[in-house]
Amino acid sequence: MTKRTLGLIMNGVTGRMGKNQHLVHSILAIREAGGVALADGTRIVPEPILVGRNAGKLQALAQEYGLARWTTDLDAALADPAAEIYFDGGATLLRQQNLTKAIAAGKHVYCEKPSASNLEGALEVYRLAAAKDCRHGVVHDKLWAPGMLKLRMLLDSGFFGRVLAVRVEGCYWVFEGDLAAPQRPSWNARKEDGGGMILDMMPHYRYMVDLFGSPRRIVCLGATHVDRRWDESGRPFTATADDSAYAIIELENGVVASVNSSWCFRVRRDDIVTMQVDGTLGSAVAGLRQCFVQRRETTPRAQWSLDLAQPIDFYAGWQEVPDQQPFVNAFRAEWELFIRHVCEDGPFPWTLAAGARGVQLAELADRSWREGRWMDVPDLGV
Amino acid sequence: MTKRTLGLIMNGVTGRMGKNQHLVHSILAIREAGGVALADGTRIVPEPILVGRNAGKLQALAQEYGLARWTTDLDAALADPAAEIYFDGGATLLRQQNLTKAIAAGKHVYCEKPSASNLEGALEVYRLAAAKDCRHGVVHDKLWAPGMLKLRMLLDSGFFGRVLAVRVEGCYWVFEGDLAAPQRPSWNARKEDGGGMILDMMPHYRYMVDLFGSPRRIVCLGATHVDRRWDESGRPFTATADDSAYAIIELENGVVASVNSSWCFRVRRDDIVTMQVDGTLGSAVAGLRQCFVQRRETTPRAQWSLDLAQPIDFYAGWQEVPDQQPFVNAFRAEWELFIRHVCEDGPFPWTLAAGARGVQLAELADRSWREGRWMDVPDLGV
Amino acid sequence: MTKRTLGLIMNGVTGRMGKNQHLVHSILAIREAGGVALADGTRIVPEPILVGRNAGKLQALAQEYGLARWTTDLDAALADPAAEIYFDGGATLLRQQNLTKAIAAGKHVYCEKPSASNLEGALEVYRLAAAKDCRHGVVHDKLWAPGMLKLRMLLDSGFFGRVLAVRVEGCYWVFEGDLAAPQRPSWNARKEDGGGMILDMMPHYRYMVDLFGSPRRIVCLGATHVDRRWDESGRPFTATADDSAYAIIELENGVVASVNSSWCFRVRRDDIVTMQVDGTLGSAVAGLRQCFVQRRETTPRAQWSLDLAQPIDFYAGWQEVPDQQPFVNAFRAEWELFIRHVCEDGPFPWTLAAGARGVQLAELADRSWREGRWMDVPDLGV
Amino acid sequence: MTKRTLGLIMNGVTGRMGKNQHLVHSILAIREAGGVALADGTRIVPEPILVGRNAGKLQALAQEYGLARWTTDLDAALADPAAEIYFDGGATLLRQQNLTKAIAAGKHVYCEKPSASNLEGALEVYRLAAAKDCRHGVVHDKLWAPGMLKLRMLLDSGFFGRVLAVRVEGCYWVFEGDLAAPQRPSWNARKEDGGGMILDMMPHYRYMVDLFGSPRRIVCLGATHVDRRWDESGRPFTATADDSAYAIIELENGVVASVNSSWCFRVRRDDIVTMQVDGTLGSAVAGLRQCFVQRRETTPRAQWSLDLAQPIDFYAGWQEVPDQQPFVNAFRAEWELFIRHVCEDGPFPWTLAAGARGVQLAELADRSWREGRWMDVPDLGV
Repeated sequence: MTKRTLGLIMNGVTGRMGKNQHLVHSILAIREAGGVALADGTRIVPEPILVGRNAGKLQALAQEYGLARWTTDLDAALADPAAEIYFDGGATLLRQQNLTKAIAAGKHVYCEKPSASNLEGALEVYRLAAAKDCRHGVVHDKLWAPGMLKLRMLLDSGFFGRVLAVRVEGCYWVFEGDLAAPQRPSWNARKEDGGGMILDMMPHYRYMVDLFGSPRRIVCLGATHVDRRWDESGRPFTATADDSAYAIIELENGVVASVNSSWCFRVRRDDIVTMQVDGTLGSAVAGLRQCFVQRRETTPRAQWSLDLAQPIDFYAGWQEVPDQQPFVNAFRAEWELFIRHVCEDGPFPWTLAAGARGVQLAELADRSWREGRWMDVPDLGV
Repeated sequence: MTKRTLGLIMNGVTGRMGKNQHLVHSILAIREAGGVALADGTRIVPEPILVGRNAGKLQALAQEYGLARWTTDLDAALADPAAEIYFDGGATLLRQQNLTKAIAAGKHVYCEKPSASNLEGALEVYRLAAAKDCRHGVVHDKLWAPGMLKLRMLLDSGFFGRVLAVRVEGCYWVFEGDLAAPQRPSWNARKEDGGGMILDMMPHYRYMVDLFGSPRRIVCLGATHVDRRWDESGRPFTATADDSAYAIIELENGVVASVNSSWCFRVRRDDIVTMQVDGTLGSAVAGLRQCFVQRRETTPRAQWSLDLAQPIDFYAGWQEVPDQQPFVNAFRAEWELFIRHVCEDGPFPWTLAAGARGVQLAELADRSWREGRWMDVPDLGV
Repeated sequence: MTKRTLGLIMNGVTGRMGKNQHLVHSILAIREAGGVALADGTRIVPEPILVGRNAGKLQALAQEYGLARWTTDLDAALADPAAEIYFDGGATLLRQQNLTKAIAAGKHVYCEKPSASNLEGALEVYRLAAAKDCRHGVVHDKLWAPGMLKLRMLLDSGFFGRVLAVRVEGCYWVFEGDLAAPQRPSWNARKEDGGGMILDMMPHYRYMVDLFGSPRRIVCLGATHVDRRWDESGRPFTATADDSAYAIIELENGVVASVNSSWCFRVRRDDIVTMQVDGTLGSAVAGLRQCFVQRRETTPRAQWSLDLAQPIDFYAGWQEVPDQQPFVNAFRAEWELFIRHVCEDGPFPWTLAAGARGVQLAELADRSWREGRWMDVPDLGV
Repeated sequence: MTKRTLGLIMNGVTGRMGKNQHLVHSILAIREAGGVALADGTRIVPEPILVGRNAGKLQALAQEYGLARWTTDLDAALADPAAEIYFDGGATLLRQQNLTKAIAAGKHVYCEKPSASNLEGALEVYRLAAAKDCRHGVVHDKLWAPGMLKLRMLLDSGFFGRVLAVRVEGCYWVFEGDLAAPQRPSWNARKEDGGGMILDMMPHYRYMVDLFGSPRRIVCLGATHVDRRWDESGRPFTATADDSAYAIIELENGVVASVNSSWCFRVRRDDIVTMQVDGTLGSAVAGLRQCFVQRRETTPRAQWSLDLAQPIDFYAGWQEVPDQQPFVNAFRAEWELFIRHVCEDGPFPWTLAAGARGVQLAELADRSWREGRWMDVPDLGV
């Protein structure tokens, strides 16, 4: 059994999510398991080099996990020929610039979404990578959430027959901050700091909806339903970013995707985010973990009942898709695929081109709201 | 106790719904209860005169319920000065013409929705009535479904604080007819026979949404997801009418109403039609019978959970609103109010003007779909 | 609405099953409902003429249900030109002879299974009917049991994918008669009186298995597990007929049907008779009333567990097929189809040819047991 | 308390099952418990010597469990006079040869089933052992599964009265490998690699059926229902081995055993493998862990119900046999008995002769299928 080390620059993993999901649950977990196994039996062991702006945080993080290498000098890290991959999980506003540097330095690149702050930038960085012998990828983590894996399995198996409609509800109540601390950082609620529901979530919804067909056009209405919130230090502030988005997306194949996304809805559903798919042969409702199905043959005969209590228990007619296989962390799953893409040309469609499509939908949704009209979703040709 | 008889022409109650809801569960039930009690103690006993086109059906119906009067001659019925109210539950296409006759004959008028086949007609018949000493009303039955009554009680009590958003889902699966008989008549699926989701349901959604504010604009996408169905005799046919409608309605006060209505969605909710209302202080989800609430103080701290099963049971955090009062049949409830409106000037805002607003929303939703744009919802000035 | 009377000779309906199922629940129920509706709106009202050997029983039966006509003279009944249909539910040994007479008299014929006591006779009576303008049919009641209707719906809908295997268990415990009275007549246990499991049930299993393909060959082992029983008067006797049959049927398409049929098994299943169908895409287990399904996507990951309790609840993973439509009595359902076959040429594949196939399988199963070998199931060419 | 060490050569325990069941849960567990207690109080402590072909795996295994002795040289191990027992859990194709060597070297022998790849070989190795002062045994693990122990207890107690019939269902769904990874190694589905249901399971069914009498004859139909599967690396391949077997076994005493065994049936039973026994006085259904019983006195009066839902809950009428005694791992239980057989002549009927009977039934079942006929099961005279 051959082992091979793979140098990996990780920029921006001192924050909670970067640390937990990308460093600990993905890269360190892969190292502990002995690396990523290639088809020929070789095992690829990633060797992280932490990069960031805060030396203290980097040092603490390296020490906590026994990592030898960290630096605040990105250029120096990029100059190391043993570092084959550059990962960017840092601030969105710096992403395009850092990816550009890494591509120029001959690295393969992998990054969080959005891949740039606007479509033009996302396309530019894609074209730079495509022009070189560069493998590139963007995080599409929801695709490997167990509930979404089950949904994709149903799609692969032909369970739905012809898909008719898709409804996404990514809605929950984010506390304002006066009575209880909010579950999200306050900058999410400030437009001037890059916050907002549309920019945050439309890139996710793009790849979730893409499973069912190519979008033809979108209409979106944003709203700031709760305009007074309290920040991390307990100070009230005016929320300037959209906290809710209502969208209708028509796909080329006639499927309609209805998307409601909000931080102001209380949840009476299976999970914070659910996706319902209705097809001629069956339907499914997937959360992040669970997925429930109902076939046409077991669909109850629903009828309006105005006088009496509804005699049908509409929850009872659904069946949970069991865990037919073990699941790994969603971020790690995509990391392993990206490493195999780099090392043995494994398939990896979640490239910077896919990342640009996500940014595109966010941009069009925002314009649809501002201009009060339907927006076509042109093929980017990438 | 004084009793007074009220002559009531009932046109178009030989069909299943007209017979059950308007005749048996409303007028005959009121008669059996000794009439409608006015504030001064007088009891008003409606005396129905059945009108229709099929003498055989009318005779059979009159015989079944021991009713003395029936006729196929509408004009003769209208000529009877003892008949004070004219009710129209017959074919939509004849409604405007029959209401016009009845108003001209000096009757008070009450009718099923839609009050006419288009907005122009609905306004015309309203203006005719308004110009005379005529009491008029349109059926708004859903408002008296127990679930909606509970929702209206919550609204009256200030439970929600400031309402932020409203979501209506009026969706279920109507069988195609090949494997199991459909739950709706086949003409519903044929445009040429007056079928279609938008025309059928938008008048209802108008008065449900109006509870929360005046609509400013609407965008709607219709679809015929299932285009092959089987009719009552088992013959396949092409469905030409819209079976689904996706709408976003922005209200003048900033509340957003998202409306999904479909005969192609399988139900994983509490009821066939549900209405969720989210407000600063609390939320509610109402079906036709039940209504569940969650206050801000008992809202669970929802967080994304990609690795683990979601630790929160999102259904458990809701509490059912109990039956704090007995409920009567929704149709009968409105009939009683209309009779008191006629007989003692009781309040009755569900007039032909309200009926015209329902027709207006259906017309605008249809145009929004056809023209691919947002439609403003002008105040009708009535 | 035109009504037309249809004369119907009913021979052998004084027994419990003939009376209940054929007379009361079928013919009288059809009369009460106003007849069988044809496509052109005409309603066919069957007018029964009771025929039998016991005048007293016939008279009592006629009186109980207000029927005018009964006779012990079959030939006289057959001579009445107004009697268009002859039904035979009497003794098996006389069936062939009576059907022959009725066909010669120009009647359409309908009868209980088996259509004759052996294959030769069943084919002969079929050929007589086929040579004349005679509509003919044999009772296939299990096909309209709600559980089997659901199973047939699943088959029509493509639920199973490719069917792999079918298992029939028609097994329960018939009391011996010493401690508790048996649930079946004692002649069932005596070969010399026409008893025996194979002859009784194989005609049913033939049409149930035929749903999945044509039988190629069968191997069957009969047994008389309980050889001492007590008759209706409490006297012990030696059981001479087979009370159990174990069969394997290979179909032309490779599907295998395993059939266990016994009056000596205690039931730990959903119903007395169950049919399990396993296919590439899903499985179903149908009883007479209920039907449960499991799709490939919801199939649990079963594994051997020798040390621990099995962690999977194997019953929980199945979903009941709801009653998507109202069901009528199985016998009546087939009667209505046969009447429409006679009166408007409605489709009716359950003819004397189908009846002969049932008798064929019983005969081959019996020979397989006696001769200790596989028996081919030749196409009868009818 | 005297302790005595017993040298034990263990060949072929580096695989998952050999390691877990034979080494860890049996021999090491016995060592941890202080050995096997003989009637005279002596405790026999087995001292394993690991033998295999892969030195790396052996070394790792020895190290993991702190075992001193391992070797790749079987002959050398057999030459050690302190090693009294030879155990063979390695590849089936080498079993006969290795057992022959061990017997020649004067060892007592114990092995996994099948004891040879065909009946001739199994008998030969039996005769070699019988000709010497050699104790011998074959693994019959299912006999000590708690559910089977309960069934054997019922048999011993006379619970069943006269046993009439036995039905074995060893059936579950093994995933094909396209949507979910299969639960069994892919070689099971390849004839050329020694796969196949009949060879795998008939040796087990032989000793399970033998509890009820000696087989007189067998008819068996094999099938490869699912012929396309995916292997461990996700590549599709053609399944060449039988994945299903349908057998009827008639015992000398008239009992009939019906055996269905398949990897293509979805489970609606208590466990993956169940055995139902019906007797004149009572019945039992045993899984691997649980066992349910129904006595004649509590047998419900089952009747066909075609119109109504079956009024009897057929599951409710069974009673679970409680855990009346603690259970030890099934493999360990047999190991302890074999050690006592070697050391104090304890009874042990599960010898190489019993092993040969299992191989015999597999061979006859396979021939029955290939030749399309019943096969007699001759007494082997051993």
